[in-house]
Amino acid sequence: MKDTAILLISCTDQSGVVAAVTDFLQKNEGNILNLDEHIDSETKQFFMRVEWELPGFGIPKDKIKDYFETLVAKRFDMDWKIKFGQSIPKAALFVSKHAHCFFDILNRWESGEWKIDIPLIISNHEKFKHIAERHNIPYYHFPITKENKKEMEAKEKALLKEYNIDLIILARYMQILTSDFIKEYPNRIINIHHSSLPAFPGANPYRSAYERGVKIMGATAHYVTEDLDAGPIIVQDIIPISHNDSIREMKRKGKDVEKRVLAQAVWEHINHKVIPYENKTIVFS
Amino acid sequence: MKDTAILLISCTDQSGVVAAVTDFLQKNEGNILNLDEHIDSETKQFFMRVEWELPGFGIPKDKIKDYFETLVAKRFDMDWKIKFGQSIPKAALFVSKHAHCFFDILNRWESGEWKIDIPLIISNHEKFKHIAERHNIPYYHFPITKENKKEMEAKEKALLKEYNIDLIILARYMQILTSDFIKEYPNRIINIHHSSLPAFPGANPYRSAYERGVKIMGATAHYVTEDLDAGPIIVQDIIPISHNDSIREMKRKGKDVEKRVLAQAVWEHINHKVIPYENKTIVFS
Amino acid sequence: MKDTAILLISCTDQSGVVAAVTDFLQKNEGNILNLDEHIDSETKQFFMRVEWELPGFGIPKDKIKDYFETLVAKRFDMDWKIKFGQSIPKAALFVSKHAHCFFDILNRWESGEWKIDIPLIISNHEKFKHIAERHNIPYYHFPITKENKKEMEAKEKALLKEYNIDLIILARYMQILTSDFIKEYPNRIINIHHSSLPAFPGANPYRSAYERGVKIMGATAHYVTEDLDAGPIIVQDIIPISHNDSIREMKRKGKDVEKRVLAQAVWEHINHKVIPYENKTIVFS
Amino acid sequence: MKDTAILLISCTDQSGVVAAVTDFLQKNEGNILNLDEHIDSETKQFFMRVEWELPGFGIPKDKIKDYFETLVAKRFDMDWKIKFGQSIPKAALFVSKHAHCFFDILNRWESGEWKIDIPLIISNHEKFKHIAERHNIPYYHFPITKENKKEMEAKEKALLKEYNIDLIILARYMQILTSDFIKEYPNRIINIHHSSLPAFPGANPYRSAYERGVKIMGATAHYVTEDLDAGPIIVQDIIPISHNDSIREMKRKGKDVEKRVLAQAVWEHINHKVIPYENKTIVFS
Repeated sequence: MKDTAILLISCTDQSGVVAAVTDFLQKNEGNILNLDEHIDSETKQFFMRVEWELPGFGIPKDKIKDYFETLVAKRFDMDWKIKFGQSIPKAALFVSKHAHCFFDILNRWESGEWKIDIPLIISNHEKFKHIAERHNIPYYHFPITKENKKEMEAKEKALLKEYNIDLIILARYMQILTSDFIKEYPNRIINIHHSSLPAFPGANPYRSAYERGVKIMGATAHYVTEDLDAGPIIVQDIIPISHNDSIREMKRKGKDVEKRVLAQAVWEHINHKVIPYENKTIVFS
Repeated sequence: MKDTAILLISCTDQSGVVAAVTDFLQKNEGNILNLDEHIDSETKQFFMRVEWELPGFGIPKDKIKDYFETLVAKRFDMDWKIKFGQSIPKAALFVSKHAHCFFDILNRWESGEWKIDIPLIISNHEKFKHIAERHNIPYYHFPITKENKKEMEAKEKALLKEYNIDLIILARYMQILTSDFIKEYPNRIINIHHSSLPAFPGANPYRSAYERGVKIMGATAHYVTEDLDAGPIIVQDIIPISHNDSIREMKRKGKDVEKRVLAQAVWEHINHKVIPYENKTIVFS
Repeated sequence: MKDTAILLISCTDQSGVVAAVTDFLQKNEGNILNLDEHIDSETKQFFMRVEWELPGFGIPKDKIKDYFETLVAKRFDMDWKIKFGQSIPKAALFVSKHAHCFFDILNRWESGEWKIDIPLIISNHEKFKHIAERHNIPYYHFPITKENKKEMEAKEKALLKEYNIDLIILARYMQILTSDFIKEYPNRIINIHHSSLPAFPGANPYRSAYERGVKIMGATAHYVTEDLDAGPIIVQDIIPISHNDSIREMKRKGKDVEKRVLAQAVWEHINHKVIPYENKTIVFS
Repeated sequence: MKDTAILLISCTDQSGVVAAVTDFLQKNEGNILNLDEHIDSETKQFFMRVEWELPGFGIPKDKIKDYFETLVAKRFDMDWKIKFGQSIPKAALFVSKHAHCFFDILNRWESGEWKIDIPLIISNHEKFKHIAERHNIPYYHFPITKENKKEMEAKEKALLKEYNIDLIILARYMQILTSDFIKEYPNRIINIHHSSLPAFPGANPYRSAYERGVKIMGATAHYVTEDLDAGPIIVQDIIPISHNDSIREMKRKGKDVEKRVLAQAVWEHINHKVIPYENKTIVFS
């Protein structure tokens, strides 16, 4: 992990934005490693991601935010964030009874492929308690019902605060979060839906896909918003299916695409490649 | 093109079907080249495709239908068809103003990649008349309006009969066919829809896809039924898209997947690989 | 898992093979669930896979082999095998220092996605001993060198016999097996190579791919033969790459395609879908 | 087509390059539409593509080259080019006897999908003369043999000069060009090879792929260099194949991936997205 800073910027497209940012970095001896920008052709919104080396940069790390706001961001009315390449995000893992995404994420964490902390696991079932124990990760079991959902979520929120959670990963978590909960983590809850949204929203996409007789089947990773299955899409992919695939076989095949799509979305997020805007995302390569 | 016969069979799954068919062929010296069968795990419907060499087969070509019905099909209450490898299907090409699928199909026909006849082209616009003339294919222009649709379709149907049309290919034909028309060609009208159905049905899928911010975009070839954009799917495929793709660019990229998907569906159909059943298809490989 | 029997057959193409097999099953009340056949267009070799239900079948399970050989196989000079749907293959897992395929396979086994036994893990490193212990799988460490390879392999072979191993999975095992070892498990050792063979054989395909500037990168699962990286290919797949991908990033992306391709190859093998023939495979769908 | 200018820049990575370029544009009221940069992690070479609007830009179009060289490029020792969004490249089409890529390119040109001129077609066969005549494109037939190759190529070169050709597209042209010819059009001759290079170079990749029993098959578009089939790769893609695919069927399927890959490479080239560097390409998205 490189000792870098990353600016994620969104503002109305206007003359001089790129030059102002690069000039700010150049004047302070910031060596640019990556720069991507994008202008939405319909809304004329401007987006930019720039990453530069911190060693040798003229502004102390803890003052960049202040200086950039004053000297650049204010002028262009930017919506912006700064991230650091060496910071380790803290992710909470939510799971129900499906093993595939849950195991896959633990592997990527355990093998060091992902530089993240997973300080806690939350589930509405006891099923994976022993897996959490094996990894010495606290496992919190909240047996949510319609009646106790508010109260349970309040406890969950308290835990997430206590652990300073940056990101929530729903690894096939089979509970609908309330608006109150979602509002606390805007564009910081990543869900995997087991279809190519907007096709087959809802609880049983494989059956629907089977009945419709489709020839491809997909998965969609998206930020969770109050609109169920309608938040900004980060990653989508598909696999081909045929008449040979029973619903059972579709589910088996689907696991692989779900794992892959969720993992890629988390990867893009923790590498600060994603800028959500309204109901869409810019995912820089 | 081989001198073969192909049986396409559908019936309730029951003991002895495969053995009865292979025994019928074997007893009459029919050398089997390909045999595929499939049993739907939900409905328990049985499907089979078998292709054998005609030279040396003991039953004359024009009597196979009769013999098979009497000796095998009746016993198992089969829904079945016989096709011949050397028959050349007659396809009518319907087009409006989009060139890509239309040109692509003409190329495959002209270069000999597809063994089909295209005895006529039907369009609701004059735009491609000169292209038809270049290929010496009669071009019929029917400027369809809401008011004259019935009358125009009557003329179209008369032409299709006159030319003994087996298959209608809608190469981005931008008119909705009436139920009366569709009923005359059950599972013999192939349409290309420019989205991964059931996502984005209707007239403007690229705009809808753009607005939803999806990361994949697809095309669907299906048999036309009275339910708009809801007929049995034959082939689907997708291409990845990103925030970089404007609607204009999505349309440009979409052309390639539309061409490919429509061409593959027609190829499977004219090679007698497809058995439609209720609202789905079995497409043997 | 269904109580079924599966025949995998290979012989010279000749009249009456399919009919003879289906007649054998039909006469003994064997209800066929799946039947696939294939004739290689160049070599005229015939291949067939047929699966039928054992309950109700007229020949006792332990006598099918004998009866089929006498009544059918001998007549057509078949090379054939019988497998049973409910048998649980015993797989030995070989690993070196790469976690991704190793963890992925353990997950599929632990979650019950794969119905296999993994009675032992063999490695030339100590690295994953604690992982094996976590799963209560014996872990055998053989620190192989050029000098001791024969002796070490002899011990490995003894273990594999002791545990009645049916299948060896090389989960990025970084040792070349000797011919003597390979001969004991013909078409029963599955390796994953991290390129689209025959492109980039050998030890460092990612560097080679980077230097060649390719735009796709792949993985190949194959049966191990004495010819290094040249055995019958079972599954291949690729991912797109771009100039943005450093060797490090190619390796990271490569892990996902390696996991997927190896897992699919093992899946096809343990479901008895693969017939190797000379240096190729037939993989029935 | 927008009235824009595009700079394609390559130089050693050094501090201040991006800022210098954006400052140059900004000071002259150049509104940036797209900016991409890339640093090769191994060679530390810097690459950049920037596109801006010409209307309102302070430097006259015909002086930008001079000003940029003096004020920016010289300072950083850049290897650079300027291109204009509204310029129409002149492409020569070389073809032998395969119709698919040839027809596909003519379609894209005729339908207006590509904004290019095709002022001449060159072939070593008479086969497609009538196609050229149909489109009113001069067709030059050079029946090349080993003996007359130099003389024929001299005539071809004279023609290409006469027509001011910018780009040569080899649409499955089955002749090896001499070094002398290639040197005249460095990184301006695009060839399509019918395999995923470096797998299966040479004349008969489908047969080789069939014999090796691969499960994917590809196509590679690359700039032609003196090293046969070894020039910088622009685009690659694959299609899955199976034991079902005879060589004949592989060829048929291969046509579609060849068309697609060649067309995408030409598209990237004519949109000035490609920077070749040594034996690789940067293809900006």
